[in-house]
Parts: sequence; C-alpha cells; structure tokens
Amino acid sequence: MSDPLKLGLAGLGTVGISALKRLVSMENELAIKSSRALRVEAISAKNKNKDRGIDLTGFDWYTDPVEMATSDKIDVFVELIGGDSGPAEDAVRAAIKAGKHVITANKALLAKHGNELAKLAEEHNVSINFEAAVAGGIPVIKAIREGLTSNNITRVYGILNGTCNYILTRMEDEGLSFEECLKDAQRLGYAEADPTFDVEGNDTAHKLAILTSLAFGHEIEVDSIFLEGITSITPADIAAAEELGYRIKLLGVAQKTDSGIEQRVHPTMVPQDSAIAQIDGVTNAVAIEGDAIGSITLSGPGAGGDATASAVIADIVDIARGLEVKPLGRPASVLEPYKRARMRAHEGGYYMRLKVSDQPGVFASIANRMAEQSISLESIVQRKAKYKVEQKSETNSKDKNHQDVVLITYETTELAIRTAIETIVSDGHVVASPQVIRIERL
Amino acid sequence: MSDPLKLGLAGLGTVGISALKRLVSMENELAIKSSRALRVEAISAKNKNKDRGIDLTGFDWYTDPVEMATSDKIDVFVELIGGDSGPAEDAVRAAIKAGKHVITANKALLAKHGNELAKLAEEHNVSINFEAAVAGGIPVIKAIREGLTSNNITRVYGILNGTCNYILTRMEDEGLSFEECLKDAQRLGYAEADPTFDVEGNDTAHKLAILTSLAFGHEIEVDSIFLEGITSITPADIAAAEELGYRIKLLGVAQKTDSGIEQRVHPTMVPQDSAIAQIDGVTNAVAIEGDAIGSITLSGPGAGGDATASAVIADIVDIARGLEVKPLGRPASVLEPYKRARMRAHEGGYYMRLKVSDQPGVFASIANRMAEQSISLESIVQRKAKYKVEQKSETNSKDKNHQDVVLITYETTELAIRTAIETIVSDGHVVASPQVIRIERL
Repeated sequence: MSDPLKLGLAGLGTVGISALKRLVSMENELAIKSSRALRVEAISAKNKNKDRGIDLTGFDWYTDPVEMATSDKIDVFVELIGGDSGPAEDAVRAAIKAGKHVITANKALLAKHGNELAKLAEEHNVSINFEAAVAGGIPVIKAIREGLTSNNITRVYGILNGTCNYILTRMEDEGLSFEECLKDAQRLGYAEADPTFDVEGNDTAHKLAILTSLAFGHEIEVDSIFLEGITSITPADIAAAEELGYRIKLLGVAQKTDSGIEQRVHPTMVPQDSAIAQIDGVTNAVAIEGDAIGSITLSGPGAGGDATASAVIADIVDIARGLEVKPLGRPASVLEPYKRARMRAHEGGYYMRLKVSDQPGVFASIANRMAEQSISLESIVQRKAKYKVEQKSETNSKDKNHQDVVLITYETTELAIRTAIETIVSDGHVVASPQVIRIERL
Repeated sequence: MSDPLKLGLAGLGTVGISALKRLVSMENELAIKSSRALRVEAISAKNKNKDRGIDLTGFDWYTDPVEMATSDKIDVFVELIGGDSGPAEDAVRAAIKAGKHVITANKALLAKHGNELAKLAEEHNVSINFEAAVAGGIPVIKAIREGLTSNNITRVYGILNGTCNYILTRMEDEGLSFEECLKDAQRLGYAEADPTFDVEGNDTAHKLAILTSLAFGHEIEVDSIFLEGITSITPADIAAAEELGYRIKLLGVAQKTDSGIEQRVHPTMVPQDSAIAQIDGVTNAVAIEGDAIGSITLSGPGAGGDATASAVIADIVDIARGLEVKPLGRPASVLEPYKRARMRAHEGGYYMRLKVSDQPGVFASIANRMAEQSISLESIVQRKAKYKVEQKSETNSKDKNHQDVVLITYETTELAIRTAIETIVSDGHVVASPQVIRIERL
C-alpha cells in the first residue's frame, strides 16, 4: 500500500459532518477499496467549540481555511464551505497553487469560476473533483465525464432542484397553490426561508451550466442561461397538464442546435409516461442523450448530508486510485467558448393558458393570431375559469364572465409564440397575463 | 501527452465493429479526453476476408487471439469474443500474464472465472474493466465500483435482460401469450433462435453475480443463484397483477440478510408506481440501495452494438487516464467467500394464482391451509377462469367448472408459502400447477 492520502476538510455543515463521520467509521473499508489509507488530518470551520456530535480533538484545527489549504499536512483539500467567492474561493485557489487536489460540492463557485479554476488546476497538475455539486448522491458527473466519453452528446436534461420538484409534486397531488406548498416545504426544511434561489431556477442553472460544459466540451457559462422559475404555475396549469397527458417539472435543459447550445431552465410539460415525469418529491434525475447510448437516465437523492457526502468521498477515492481527469473532462485549453443558441430560435411545442373575456369572436381572434404566425394547434380546451385559488389571487369581480382557453401547439418557434401572444394581448381580449409553458419532446 | 495507448481488439461482431469504428472516427476527441492517443494496433477474428463494412488493412491481423494478447504491439487487450471458456478465456489469461490490461464485455466468462481472473490481474498489476458486461451502455459498474464506494449497500436489483422485459411488456400491452411475444422478439432480433438462456434467467444471473460481488465485497458466485424464468407467466397473471396495482418484471435481486446474501432471479411483482415498473421494452435498469444514498436508479439501453461499444471505450479511456481499481473493487485477497442466504428463509409478499374446482368448501380449505402457516392475506380475488390462451394450453374440457383464485399475502417466508402450497395441492382441489410470483417491496 502507498502512503496515506492526507485530507483537509473545510466546512462542517451537514455535508461536512456526514463526510467526516463516514471517513472515520469506514476507514478500513475505504482503505481497502482505495489501496491506501484516507486520513483526515486537518479541519477548518468558523467555530471550534460548537457541539457537532463528533470528537474533533484528533484533527489539526484551522480557523482560516486558506492556511489549511496550503499546509504541508494535507494532499487533498475538501471544500464544503459554500459561496461563489470569499473563503471558499480563496481557499480553493490557494490549495491548487500549493499543489493540492481539490474536492468541492460548490456549484456556485464552479458556475462562476469553474473555467479559470480548471485552467489553474491543470497548470498545477492537480485534480478538481465535484461530483457532489450536481444532483447530490447521483454519480452523474462521473457518468458524463468518464462513463460516456465516446458519445457525441446531443441533449442533457434533468430535475436538479428538489425544492421545486417537491412543490410541483405536492401541487399536483393535492391541488394546492404554489404558496401553500412552498410553506410546507419550508416547514419540512426542503426550502430556505428565502426560497428565491431555488424557486426562480438559479440553483438549477448553476448545476446545468456544469453539466453542459462536461457534455458538450464548452466553457462553463451560467449568465446567459434562459431562466424561468415556477412561481407562476397555478393549480389550473397543473390540472390542464394532467388532462392533456403531461406533468409539469422544472427542467434544466442543454441541447445542441445548429446555431449553438441551448441552455434553459423553465417549467416544462413532459409526457406523463416519460421517465422524468415519474420523478416525485425531492428526488433528482438527469437524462443524457448521445449517439451511442441513445438515452440513459439516472435518478436518486439530489441533496441531504449523507447522499452528498457519498459523492464527496467517492471523489476522494478516485484521487487515491490515481484517476487523472481534467476537471472539465478535456484540457481547459481546448474547451470551446460557449456558443449560445438564441432562445427566440428555440423549437418546440407550447402550452398556453389565456384568460379571456366571455364574448363572441374572442376565440376566432386568438385562432387567427396563431395562424398568422403559422402555429398549428394540437389541442384546444375552452372552459369556464373554475380554480378558486386563481380567482382569489386575481380578485376580479367579473371573473364569472371569463373563460380559460388552453392551447397546445405543435412544434413551432419561441419567436412565433412570443409574437402571437403580443398581438393577442394587444387585441385586448385577454384579462390576465398569459401563461406559457414549454413542452419538451422526450 | 504520454505515448499512445496501444489496443488489440479480439472479436469483430456487432460490438467489436462498433467499437472499432468509434475509436477511429473519434480518435481526436478521445485523445483529448484521455490526454493520450488511443490507437488500435491489432485485430483478431476468425475470418479476415469477411466484409465488415470497414477497412481493416491498417491493423495487424491475428487469427489467434492468444498470439495477439501476448504481442508487444499492444498495451490493452479488448476481449469481445464471448463464451465462458475457449479462446476468450485463453486469450484473457494470456494477456494478463503478459502484463496487458484487459477489457471485456464477457459476463459469462466473469461469472465463471471472475474471482480467479481478478487475482491473476492483481498479481500482474493490470486492470480488468468490464462495464459492457452488465446492462450494456449504462455505467453501472462504474457507479458501484467507483461512485458509491462509501456506501454500505443493502440491496441491488434490476431488469438486466432486454429480451425478457420486451416479452413481458408486450404481454402486458397487448394481452398476448408468452409464446406469441417470444416469436415477435425473435422476428425483431431481440431474442435468439434458442432463447433458453434469456427466458430462463441465466443471462440475468450472470450479470447479477457480478453486481453482487461489487456491491457486497464477496467473491462472484453464480451457481447458487435462485433461478426462475418467465416461461410460466400467463396473460392471467399479467391481468391480475395490473388489477392489484403491480407489474411483472424479471428481476435479478441481491440483498443483504442476517444469514447471508440472497441472490435470486425470478418474475417479480413490483408496485405500478415504482421506478422499475416504468422500464419498458428492451430497456434495462438497475437500482442500488445504500446507507448514504438511499436509493438510486440507472436506466438505459442494455444491449446493442453502439451502446455496448460506448461502455467498452469508456473502459479504455479509464485506463488511459491512469485509473487503478482492483477488478472487483477490492483486492481479491480480501473478498469474502460468498455466504448464501437460504431461499427458504426469504421474506416477502407473494402472489398466488390457483386454478381450483368450482365446489363448495374449496376456498375455505385454501384459507385454512394458509392460516396454518400463519400467512396473512392482503387481497383475494376469485373469479371464473376466462383467459383464452390459458384454457387452450390446458385443453381441459371441464374448464368451465374451474375458477382462478388469486391471493396476495402479506410478508411471510418462502418456506411457509411452499409448505402451504404443498398441502393445498395434496388436498386435491387444485386442477393445475399453482402459480407463485414473489412481490418485491420497493
């Protein structure tokens, strides 16, 4: 057996504590699997004296993670601090420059600085492993970066945020409003007190940006991701989706097109019988489509201390076993700049729900506006608006004179849909902001 | 960049040709990902002059794979010959002894000789990679051997044979008999002319034995796997399963119990809303349950030239990237001997379908026999036998005087069920061999 692999752990939140406990309790097992001992030598966190339910006296303690990152006592720096700058970034940079391998669960850091950190790591001949940064315990980074290397990948998509999927599943199962389900999610600890980052899709975007880079060999680019959260989804949409054979999921999708790579995060109608439609509650799932494998889907826990720690430790074992992969799967020098496909060129089916005044000719007018944009309709459902929650939130006393018109279009473009909606709105028949949900062909 | 990794490919069937084509067409891409060139230097197959739609003149040709396996011209021997002995075995042994890394898609070889080959490979300090041997293009070996190393795995189960899943899906979708669906599968190339190996579960058992070893750290043991194929499944079973909220799948299951590891392959009733129940047609899926990850599921293509070649090439890239994993995830010297859990001690729910004579007291008698074994019943459905296919196959003119009694039991033991059935049969009320299908709790 080789010398022990010496680890420094920065950050003792849920994941850090779980990783530490498992590294200690499974010491023998992990040494056998790695053909060398994995030894936690040093730990860094803000408060040394906080009771974390584990004896920390055997480890060197550093209040400053940067100091630990550069210490001779460690070979691998495990960053579980979080945040896209500050101590996490400083310590990761310092560790790389000091020739330490880095393991991180920090999707925000990678989404923001991943390209640069990858380059730095290559210069210093060290690895950055980050299985825990995307989809928690599901080994999806490994699947793309190692398992599917001989595929020309055409699309990657997934349910990457458990909070949103929990809320949408609850809305569907119980007919509740977004707000009610969000409250439950907060009560159960599935959502933060400020849920913006989750429900607006930013968290999904961070993870998607990492997957896109690995799948398509481009630089990570998070800022230009098309972003729509789930806050506008109503029980009326959920019910209409069900009636039409769909379910609504917040998907992150990266797709190769003739004009570049689409990266988009938005509520998505997926066919009820698709694999991704079956993913309920806080579970995550990622599907990868390539020319050799067709399509594979991985599902499992996207968060949680133990599941995330499982990914962190697998990354450590990989280093112990000598795996040398460039952080982004290819040398940073050959990564192409991200070429964005314009969202207006996006092609797909669309769901539209329009609340219209109950007057003669309205429907014909809408149909004409769609026809002007060469949009063909697959289904049309017209009915009295009936969803309590929606009526309440709009507090419109004339609501009884309104109807919901639900349209499903055949394949068209985002530009055509936006143009059609603009004209429909300016015609004045629509009494509330139109709801549009993209349909994903699976 | 390091020197090129020199490959010798033995076996030019569908997978071999697909792997060769991809290695050639993706040469640059793979070199970039591997940080070194992957170069096919030599090829071995029986017939040099057969037209395979690819130019082979640039490669050294060996009629004898053993000769190629020991040639100085190669670093890695890729075995795609097949068979659990003969040239495949001889060449793999020779390659290992000559210090070559081995990549194989040969589940039969590994199921039979895997323990010994793993030991030999370790002695000679080379790798054996075999992602393609289980579940084709799904990176499930990688997931267990690398991605989930810090989990105490408690159960692994999966749909590992596309032929069987295709047949069961067709039976369910169209109400056809096993025989009719088998014929269709043969016509479409999903089943061999002699389908025994698939439909009797042997193929699933080979794959399960490999997964079990990786998951639980035991030696591979295929011969003692409990084996039941799908030939006895009738449309009556499929229909009853559906009515009771289940679907029938041929599962391979490996499960930790107090008395050892259960390994079993049998038709299984799985809840309709479980992830595994959604896997249709020739698709494969594997679920892994561990103490850190809870449960993760991987699904995708379990066969096909391109999908399998994808796994083979990923294995090659791993070697180029320096990954050093012991073939069975741990040194062969520490693998425990397989400790078999007795099938009679298996605990679970059961589905039973009994064709009984239509006489007073029969049902009470059956219920008493179950009670004697302390078996509690969850559901009971009694009805006139009505399935044409079944009646035809039994050609019993008194069929109109028979009834199907379908029982679903609560958790009990295999021993209790077998004893109950023996006594029920010996009571003389049952007019055909009872059908028993195990229910898997998911």
